[in-house]
Amino acid sequence: MKQPLLYLVGCIALLLATATGWAQNKTIVFQSDFGLKDGAVSAMKGVANTVSADLKLYDLTHEIPAYNIWEAAYRLEQTVPYWPAGTVFVSVVDPGVGTSRRSVVLKTNSGHFIVTPDNGTLTLVAASLGIAAVREIDEAVNRRKNSQQSYTFHGRDVYAYTAARLASGAITFEQVGLALPNEVVKIPYQAATLENGILKGNIAILDVQYGNVWTNISADLLNQLRPKYGDILHVTFFHHGKKVHQADAPYSQTFGAVAIGQPLSYLNSLMELSFALNQGNFADTWHIGSGSEWSVEVTVNHR
Amino acid sequence: MKQPLLYLVGCIALLLATATGWAQNKTIVFQSDFGLKDGAVSAMKGVANTVSADLKLYDLTHEIPAYNIWEAAYRLEQTVPYWPAGTVFVSVVDPGVGTSRRSVVLKTNSGHFIVTPDNGTLTLVAASLGIAAVREIDEAVNRRKNSQQSYTFHGRDVYAYTAARLASGAITFEQVGLALPNEVVKIPYQAATLENGILKGNIAILDVQYGNVWTNISADLLNQLRPKYGDILHVTFFHHGKKVHQADAPYSQTFGAVAIGQPLSYLNSLMELSFALNQGNFADTWHIGSGSEWSVEVTVNHR
Amino acid sequence: MKQPLLYLVGCIALLLATATGWAQNKTIVFQSDFGLKDGAVSAMKGVANTVSADLKLYDLTHEIPAYNIWEAAYRLEQTVPYWPAGTVFVSVVDPGVGTSRRSVVLKTNSGHFIVTPDNGTLTLVAASLGIAAVREIDEAVNRRKNSQQSYTFHGRDVYAYTAARLASGAITFEQVGLALPNEVVKIPYQAATLENGILKGNIAILDVQYGNVWTNISADLLNQLRPKYGDILHVTFFHHGKKVHQADAPYSQTFGAVAIGQPLSYLNSLMELSFALNQGNFADTWHIGSGSEWSVEVTVNHR
Repeated sequence: MKQPLLYLVGCIALLLATATGWAQNKTIVFQSDFGLKDGAVSAMKGVANTVSADLKLYDLTHEIPAYNIWEAAYRLEQTVPYWPAGTVFVSVVDPGVGTSRRSVVLKTNSGHFIVTPDNGTLTLVAASLGIAAVREIDEAVNRRKNSQQSYTFHGRDVYAYTAARLASGAITFEQVGLALPNEVVKIPYQAATLENGILKGNIAILDVQYGNVWTNISADLLNQLRPKYGDILHVTFFHHGKKVHQADAPYSQTFGAVAIGQPLSYLNSLMELSFALNQGNFADTWHIGSGSEWSVEVTVNHR
Repeated sequence: MKQPLLYLVGCIALLLATATGWAQNKTIVFQSDFGLKDGAVSAMKGVANTVSADLKLYDLTHEIPAYNIWEAAYRLEQTVPYWPAGTVFVSVVDPGVGTSRRSVVLKTNSGHFIVTPDNGTLTLVAASLGIAAVREIDEAVNRRKNSQQSYTFHGRDVYAYTAARLASGAITFEQVGLALPNEVVKIPYQAATLENGILKGNIAILDVQYGNVWTNISADLLNQLRPKYGDILHVTFFHHGKKVHQADAPYSQTFGAVAIGQPLSYLNSLMELSFALNQGNFADTWHIGSGSEWSVEVTVNHR
Repeated sequence: MKQPLLYLVGCIALLLATATGWAQNKTIVFQSDFGLKDGAVSAMKGVANTVSADLKLYDLTHEIPAYNIWEAAYRLEQTVPYWPAGTVFVSVVDPGVGTSRRSVVLKTNSGHFIVTPDNGTLTLVAASLGIAAVREIDEAVNRRKNSQQSYTFHGRDVYAYTAARLASGAITFEQVGLALPNEVVKIPYQAATLENGILKGNIAILDVQYGNVWTNISADLLNQLRPKYGDILHVTFFHHGKKVHQADAPYSQTFGAVAIGQPLSYLNSLMELSFALNQGNFADTWHIGSGSEWSVEVTVNHR
């Protein structure tokens, strides 16, 4: 009968620990540029499951284009806020694996944790959610046993392993490693601005499934120009500062407000200004891309 | 010591509640046309996880071709019956988002729940599993807090949120919203029929990974013509009623019953008449598609 | 009050059973060539969930190229060791479905279980992890009820069903079916050898996301030639014994050790010799494939 008693004691200890405020909620969300065709993502989850069988393991996406740190940054910003505080994210888009970039855990002001190489991946989430603290992973303790010879799969041996230890409560955030200054490596990009009636902003991402073009211009900023549904937004698209395309896109509440194949402007699910063709693909049709080197200028023509 | 006691009382309450027949089983299965390249699916799961940390979250597919309501309908019919009664499905293929289509929850006679825009997505599952009840989602209560300004991501803010509340038992089925008549929006298609020795039916779907052609003609209907393995099935394929291709496909128990690259007919895993090339791709080779506008005629040549 | 008492008794029984050494850990990892576009994977998980609601269900990959048994074998070998002992794997790449190949469960010496058609899928994992025992699935008992008429979806009706019964403890490993000899069907391939200073080996797989070429030549074997970082590895690639490409690939600790677009050789995350282009795609560029019919010869030019 000793086993059930021990089990009960363990349960009570866990309840008390939870009540006293361990932040981590036993949930990990994985992101990478590994794709789903090989066993890399599964190996990361196997390692996490070996650390603790009590974890819940989910995915953000593993289809980040290879080495595209900007998109990794964007997907995190798009998704992290919808998960509960205490969720641990792992993001592995790491063209510099084996070089001197630091491996860190960011704790945001919203109470989310992000385990990643500090290579720009944290640019947007640090700006929007705020930096509560940053710690460098101490690989002397937070690295899978017997993995020291392998130089190329930090995602499995360091990031998934550390995330599982953190998410399960095997270590506290402080035990990740030494505290760093409250800074992360940032990728430069066009901030959203409004001057003399001209909105400027970055093309943050394409809504790839549909080819919609999403900017970083918030509803609040746009609303300073008091657009009404049906007003024409005149938009110019730039790549490395060079004009690529212009369009007149009626500001619309629904895609069906314009004819099939016609352009429109709208607020996307993140409440940011976006451009689309009704039941068409704006980005493919007009060769528009996204990332730090893409930008837009927008003016409103009131009817 | 109060916390563990409360916990024990909670456990007992939950056991009694389960015993007395709450139908929902804390499991949600998600389907959409979002793809897996961005954070949309993960945001839906994050919202569900925020509603309740006790849910199990699975996927049907997120690779429904964009706006293809027919295929959403078919994937549900193919998959729902294999999950336990009480499972809550979320299907978001929603070309009419922002228009007047209703957001509903269907309870089938088999005890499954499907949360979806009522735009034809329920056509096949309603026919095969039966309609126990339909309720319209009351967005005044069943909508994520502070999401009212966003017009374009009902999947996250209404459907995932409502499904999580329903699956977790936070609300009963009755609390979804007002009861509607036991009807759903239906897409017209060729029913499976047998007249004068001629079978007619719809090409319900392609088995896309292999290019096999699946009809809605059941084994029971086919067996009225008493085919034996080795008998030739003569089949004609139609698109919008126009003949596209004809084939003589031996009725086979295994793909290996014909030479590599040759056509055969067989009963698929849903026990419906299907056509394939042994280790080849029937649909690509003969330009056959699927959906409400595709149909077949079949006769049996006994050896 | 009877229900909670029964529940408590059940819990204690389960604890004792666990303590006395049932190996299975309620975790299933699925692999197939089904893709993620239809409901096949979800139906397998639904069946597993119907057997037991306590299972944790994960994926290895479902993007194995259709009918590619070699790649199924490789992905298992790559991934199984990173999951805890007691995990049950289901692998369904089954061009011979409906023919006489056996359906088996392999228990490895590492304590993992693999449920699969015995068609070569077990070639590599049996060699690397060792065969503890093999049993043939007795479909008279280990087959989903009322599925006998269906000939084409063993993945759902036999493999997922049996795996769920095994993983959940509903059956012991012995109850899978009759014991077979400790052998599995094997695919022939070039073993890794070193003779007269020439390394020979198989191209086990491509790291498809990046186009890197992975061999089965271990670090231990390579190290007998005492390569230092910066030494040139001269490698010749063969398809069916015919020379396809030659390259001089500096032996590197990091991809950044060579210029962008240049070849390098390195130890991959499995500690096996591999070839890559820094930020490029070696396999696409030089038309290199993988599988039992691909091989390499390697010599080291010390600086």
